[in-house]
Amino acid sequence: MNKKLFSIGLVMVLGAAYSLTSFSQVKPETLVKQRQAAMTLQGKYFYLQLRPMAQGKSPYDANVVARDAGYLEALTKMPWDGFTPATKDVKSAALPAVFTDTAKFKEAQDRLQSEVAKLVSVSKSGDEAAVKAQIGAVDKACGGCHETFREKQ
Amino acid sequence: MNKKLFSIGLVMVLGAAYSLTSFSQVKPETLVKQRQAAMTLQGKYFYLQLRPMAQGKSPYDANVVARDAGYLEALTKMPWDGFTPATKDVKSAALPAVFTDTAKFKEAQDRLQSEVAKLVSVSKSGDEAAVKAQIGAVDKACGGCHETFREKQ
Repeated sequence: MNKKLFSIGLVMVLGAAYSLTSFSQVKPETLVKQRQAAMTLQGKYFYLQLRPMAQGKSPYDANVVARDAGYLEALTKMPWDGFTPATKDVKSAALPAVFTDTAKFKEAQDRLQSEVAKLVSVSKSGDEAAVKAQIGAVDKACGGCHETFREKQ
Repeated sequence: MNKKLFSIGLVMVLGAAYSLTSFSQVKPETLVKQRQAAMTLQGKYFYLQLRPMAQGKSPYDANVVARDAGYLEALTKMPWDGFTPATKDVKSAALPAVFTDTAKFKEAQDRLQSEVAKLVSVSKSGDEAAVKAQIGAVDKACGGCHETFREKQ
């Protein structure tokens, strides 16, 4: 029985190790490159397209807003698994707080995802004023996180 | 009347120029960085997660497949507006054919998007063999485009 339990335990340990393989083999530098890629694309659709529309700096296009909101919904889920402890010494704009205040960092991620989900929903309503207000809320969520967790730029 | 037509024409020209502003102000180097970011993330989810699963190199996880397929559906729409003629002299792995054989390049984009759309659909079916076959089809679409339009790596 003990032998059987041991075997089961061994299988579980090996299974866990195996299922981690594909991720743990990714170099810290690659994780940083991937998370920065997600941020670059958030910048493309948010800072270069959505925010200028909300601020009246480029013409409002409801179709582009809906498309970009959908892109952001995917993109704002992508960066976070790249902030592993193994990446903390790789040169990037991430402040040490990312790795020390992980609960607050997680809260900031959740807040962004929640504001973006609201943007997706409101972008389907055709209510331009509400969309613009929600773009402002997403902007605050981006900025709030950058304030605490990213080097000043 | 001619004056009125001229005024309308002027408004249309200015309007068109205005609506292009937010895009045309983006530097070619930024466009290249953005399109490369999209490719980096396609690599994260396809080459580092989906393909190893299809090849039996990492354990198959239907939930991860469905999530990644959804991410790819968004990501495979993102790179293409970054391949503008203005970027052709910016250092990158893009071959000249990108800018000369634009019809074939567009076909390759459409093929990838179509194979990824099929993957999204089949990933909801729970048919592991069909999913793995479709991951293979996406792989071929990636590779076919790289063969013609990207420098050998």
